[in-house]
Amino acid sequence: MKTTVSILGGSGYGGGELLRLLLAHPCVEVKQVTSRSHLGEYVYQVHPNLRKRTQLKFSDPAVLEPVDILFLAQPHGQAQHHIEEYTQLSPKIIDLSADFRLKDPEVYEQWYGEKHSAPKWLSKFVYGLPELHRVELATATYVSGVGCNATASNLALLPLIKADLLDTSSPIYIEIKVGSSESGAEGNVGSHHAERANVIRTFSAFGHRHTAEVIQEMGVDNVSLTMTAVDLVRGALATAHARVKQGASNKDLWKAYRAVANENPFLRVAKEQRGIYRVPEPKILAGTNYADLGFELDESNGHVVAMCAIDNLMKGASGSAVQCMNLMMGWDETLGLEFIGLHPI
Amino acid sequence: MKTTVSILGGSGYGGGELLRLLLAHPCVEVKQVTSRSHLGEYVYQVHPNLRKRTQLKFSDPAVLEPVDILFLAQPHGQAQHHIEEYTQLSPKIIDLSADFRLKDPEVYEQWYGEKHSAPKWLSKFVYGLPELHRVELATATYVSGVGCNATASNLALLPLIKADLLDTSSPIYIEIKVGSSESGAEGNVGSHHAERANVIRTFSAFGHRHTAEVIQEMGVDNVSLTMTAVDLVRGALATAHARVKQGASNKDLWKAYRAVANENPFLRVAKEQRGIYRVPEPKILAGTNYADLGFELDESNGHVVAMCAIDNLMKGASGSAVQCMNLMMGWDETLGLEFIGLHPI
Amino acid sequence: MKTTVSILGGSGYGGGELLRLLLAHPCVEVKQVTSRSHLGEYVYQVHPNLRKRTQLKFSDPAVLEPVDILFLAQPHGQAQHHIEEYTQLSPKIIDLSADFRLKDPEVYEQWYGEKHSAPKWLSKFVYGLPELHRVELATATYVSGVGCNATASNLALLPLIKADLLDTSSPIYIEIKVGSSESGAEGNVGSHHAERANVIRTFSAFGHRHTAEVIQEMGVDNVSLTMTAVDLVRGALATAHARVKQGASNKDLWKAYRAVANENPFLRVAKEQRGIYRVPEPKILAGTNYADLGFELDESNGHVVAMCAIDNLMKGASGSAVQCMNLMMGWDETLGLEFIGLHPI
Amino acid sequence: MKTTVSILGGSGYGGGELLRLLLAHPCVEVKQVTSRSHLGEYVYQVHPNLRKRTQLKFSDPAVLEPVDILFLAQPHGQAQHHIEEYTQLSPKIIDLSADFRLKDPEVYEQWYGEKHSAPKWLSKFVYGLPELHRVELATATYVSGVGCNATASNLALLPLIKADLLDTSSPIYIEIKVGSSESGAEGNVGSHHAERANVIRTFSAFGHRHTAEVIQEMGVDNVSLTMTAVDLVRGALATAHARVKQGASNKDLWKAYRAVANENPFLRVAKEQRGIYRVPEPKILAGTNYADLGFELDESNGHVVAMCAIDNLMKGASGSAVQCMNLMMGWDETLGLEFIGLHPI
Repeated sequence: MKTTVSILGGSGYGGGELLRLLLAHPCVEVKQVTSRSHLGEYVYQVHPNLRKRTQLKFSDPAVLEPVDILFLAQPHGQAQHHIEEYTQLSPKIIDLSADFRLKDPEVYEQWYGEKHSAPKWLSKFVYGLPELHRVELATATYVSGVGCNATASNLALLPLIKADLLDTSSPIYIEIKVGSSESGAEGNVGSHHAERANVIRTFSAFGHRHTAEVIQEMGVDNVSLTMTAVDLVRGALATAHARVKQGASNKDLWKAYRAVANENPFLRVAKEQRGIYRVPEPKILAGTNYADLGFELDESNGHVVAMCAIDNLMKGASGSAVQCMNLMMGWDETLGLEFIGLHPI
Repeated sequence: MKTTVSILGGSGYGGGELLRLLLAHPCVEVKQVTSRSHLGEYVYQVHPNLRKRTQLKFSDPAVLEPVDILFLAQPHGQAQHHIEEYTQLSPKIIDLSADFRLKDPEVYEQWYGEKHSAPKWLSKFVYGLPELHRVELATATYVSGVGCNATASNLALLPLIKADLLDTSSPIYIEIKVGSSESGAEGNVGSHHAERANVIRTFSAFGHRHTAEVIQEMGVDNVSLTMTAVDLVRGALATAHARVKQGASNKDLWKAYRAVANENPFLRVAKEQRGIYRVPEPKILAGTNYADLGFELDESNGHVVAMCAIDNLMKGASGSAVQCMNLMMGWDETLGLEFIGLHPI
Repeated sequence: MKTTVSILGGSGYGGGELLRLLLAHPCVEVKQVTSRSHLGEYVYQVHPNLRKRTQLKFSDPAVLEPVDILFLAQPHGQAQHHIEEYTQLSPKIIDLSADFRLKDPEVYEQWYGEKHSAPKWLSKFVYGLPELHRVELATATYVSGVGCNATASNLALLPLIKADLLDTSSPIYIEIKVGSSESGAEGNVGSHHAERANVIRTFSAFGHRHTAEVIQEMGVDNVSLTMTAVDLVRGALATAHARVKQGASNKDLWKAYRAVANENPFLRVAKEQRGIYRVPEPKILAGTNYADLGFELDESNGHVVAMCAIDNLMKGASGSAVQCMNLMMGWDETLGLEFIGLHPI
Repeated sequence: MKTTVSILGGSGYGGGELLRLLLAHPCVEVKQVTSRSHLGEYVYQVHPNLRKRTQLKFSDPAVLEPVDILFLAQPHGQAQHHIEEYTQLSPKIIDLSADFRLKDPEVYEQWYGEKHSAPKWLSKFVYGLPELHRVELATATYVSGVGCNATASNLALLPLIKADLLDTSSPIYIEIKVGSSESGAEGNVGSHHAERANVIRTFSAFGHRHTAEVIQEMGVDNVSLTMTAVDLVRGALATAHARVKQGASNKDLWKAYRAVANENPFLRVAKEQRGIYRVPEPKILAGTNYADLGFELDESNGHVVAMCAIDNLMKGASGSAVQCMNLMMGWDETLGLEFIGLHPI
């Protein structure tokens, strides 16, 4: 008997990716996928990769049936207005939006520019990054999604933070380069191919909302995220500049990186002396749930460059959500997330 | 007890893709992967997608051990010189190269410019496209690979040929647009990114060697393949121009296309009235074994435009090879080939 | 004393390209550039390449002042409704839209699906391709633009037609691969980068409106244009499949191609035995007014593959328009169109 | 009577770009372009953009004739061994390589790993960035080229340094994203399109040789350059992270940026509140000599993000070299460098 799931908001990129994963997951059955704008269409007409894999049609979000797990994949700012209803429909909820990621309603207001409309629910959600909250996720009923850029940043810093190697009094500058799928399926005036192709566009120097998730989850204050759009569809690379503590050596860092890679099935260290792929790169991660980590340390001055590459739609969104589901259900953490990734691509 | 397999020539793109598929295949165990130039290196140093998935190293092709199935993924022109040795090592052989695709040694010489060195072996190989030779493959011991461009062409024409709708007295022009992975892992002077990016380069107007496979397998004489390189890594689209027989209608073609799609798990009809993806497109097929088929018929003059999109490294090479293995072993034809494909990508 | 010009409709890609050319043209002064949607903005806010090159702002199309030459760069279907007004404002008009390209109002209706609203004006316009109408352009007052795909097709066929080498009783299939700038600055749902990147999308098998211009200008009936979108911003390549007349040889074709290249400053023969760039390719033409021509002839059966590469916004639109202006004004035909093009790009 | 020039080393990207500029320059005549590997070939066979623009062939570097200005566009490490010879051939020399950029032979050895073989010549060369050395260039006889990444970095910092707004005691991290033309015409194993397409590859975390030029020219010590390859052919964007001096405001920065833009014809401020192009972007600069500058200041903590976009082959190499020539000859600084750039592209 399979676990039943539904996706609220299935025509976007996050929802589509989730649907792809859930359709292939051995333990779940997808009951409904909703979309107002594509109501009644076959889901494969919007997500053509699903052709011949499902005959599901987009259903009306207003007529949701009860399920075991409800995934919310709506635009930000919606789930918080309907969370009470949703909890009537399903005992477990995983929300991919930004609505329940931040614990503190004031912090939410500061970064999102408006009061949170369901502040008491914030504390009921576990932040959905298994590498940070594996234990809590095992017993969680409500789980938030993760910001893709926050995830690349958090995992770039994780080995250094965990091993207490970072000089957190120095500023941390995280340069994140991203593909066009980050702007969502709706796109915007700047996402027209003729304008968006070939770009190197630093569209946000600092102040990106995902910064709040880095501050909260990493416990660092002095951090800024700089966003640069490049010519790619899927993928994000975070290149973080920071200072290590006095005396921290390359050997210490190797130890720290190997430790987190050993503890986490989807973390890998990408640091080679030969070959083309010596550092973390997002392109080979398309469709996978891996986060590839790397670093370079200038021992002369303590400058560390810590890198993390992910597929923003997978580890940065739907892949982590499925990984959370696996943990919540007591299934193998990697179930349905085994795709190896392509080379070349 | 798993079936043992080895790959001779594993550092190229075809061999790497094969390795990816076989590592994830539930019924096989990969014993050896050879490479002279990368001898002793971890396979993930060449194929970085395999990081944390295997600790295999490239071994010496001169010290192959016996296995149940031997895959040959060497450059063209090598397997024919060693086929006697290889058959000593393994009862079943699947050769991805062009060496055993053509039945007639004279045709081989005509297209490849040199005498075949093992002509008596040609008849022992089954042409490895399941959609054409499913029954023979079930009992085959030696199976050839397929040319990627030949596969896109053959599958584009298949519904029309099978339903006897094609006017084979008229010339058939097949325009094929291809990505850069077709030039192989070694590349060439023209595959430097700065020269190869942004191209629309009709590098072969006619005379491409894969034409011989279309002539042999489709039984048509008057056919030419025109090759155009475009800016993409994986993928090929064949757009075939031909004439249908007098009186053939859109309805007849729909019937023909639905029939082949029903009979073949990896063939899909991509012909929609709405949405972005109305026709076959290779990009959403990256990593999958699907061939998406489409057509447009001008009933006023019988001009048919028949399309087929594939991932050249999958359906056009390694994916079809694994599909052949499944048939040879009596396994489910789709085993290890279930990947859905990505959207967006 | 410079010739005064204005551009009606300057926020689109055709208008922007025209503006770029006219701002750098030694004999003209740009008076007005209109845009309803960007009224009052600096033109460089829409066309950022013009930053520091002009302080012009978009003006209201309703308050046009008289000029020596008026360029119309509006969407199709508008100029025909206002042509009487425009001729009051300017003695010379060059219309980049499709409104006055076709001579026969019935043909217009057949391809554009509605009656032409100023049919008597059709005969007053010269079709604006200098390679076909250089003499008439010298005395023309009203000149139409050209369809970009029609231009690639017409110039691909031109040497064969002019030397009477084509067997016009056989069908002519023209496969055209195009970049994303062809869809215009407004774009459409399919032009979102995440959907449009990496495509090989045969979006129109036949029936493209530009076909009418090929039929009219080349005097051939049995011709179809097949459109395939590829991952590129600027550029179009036409690859035409046809039959030459009995006995036509490679030598005949070389002679024909050299003749047209000698007679036309912007036509070049691209047919090399060595190097990377052996055939016509659009990417090195970005920003130039060149059309590069090439061919391959299969003497065994008369199959000719005739190629033409252009920058769709230049030779396929604004570049040809400026070339027409030069001819109309008695200036050197290449004035303001000397840009060499980039390599690599 | 035109000034005669020759290019030593013309088959590379820098040499080819220089040739393109010099062929179109109104005051010069190109006498020779050398290439050992392409000796005797037409230059347009290597640089296809030059087809129909010149009948020059590559000549032997061993048989150079005297000219007014000799451009050296060879790989690094060659000019220093032959500088005595070259000065016999030409009174003025502009060397695009790295051989004469650094003033101090010890610094050269530190960054390039070997002793300089003509140290006494180092002081005779003026560093060829007009924005820094315009006055000295007017009387210079020997001029060095500039490193492309150094140029993007130096110009990103220039307004802040000139206005003394930078807190030079804080570390400066410069993140540079670059296209594939930076790896040169020869390329390398990683520049195969199938490997290089779609990358976000931080190939050098720190220690890039161009850093030495930033230290020398900007007078800052605590600076590092981090290099990330992205999917683009031409173009580089430097995004520099630094701290401004206590109290420095947005207004101060605006003033500083406007000042340098006013003083330098090829510097522009790209900082808009609306439209798609609000920040510096290299793609619209392809083929131009512009450097577009922008900044964002976080007044709360003094964190400044200073950006500079260039075409690495133009402002970052050959364009600056031609600009230097103009200054050395007393010509208008912008001569032959007027190309506006393309939009879209």
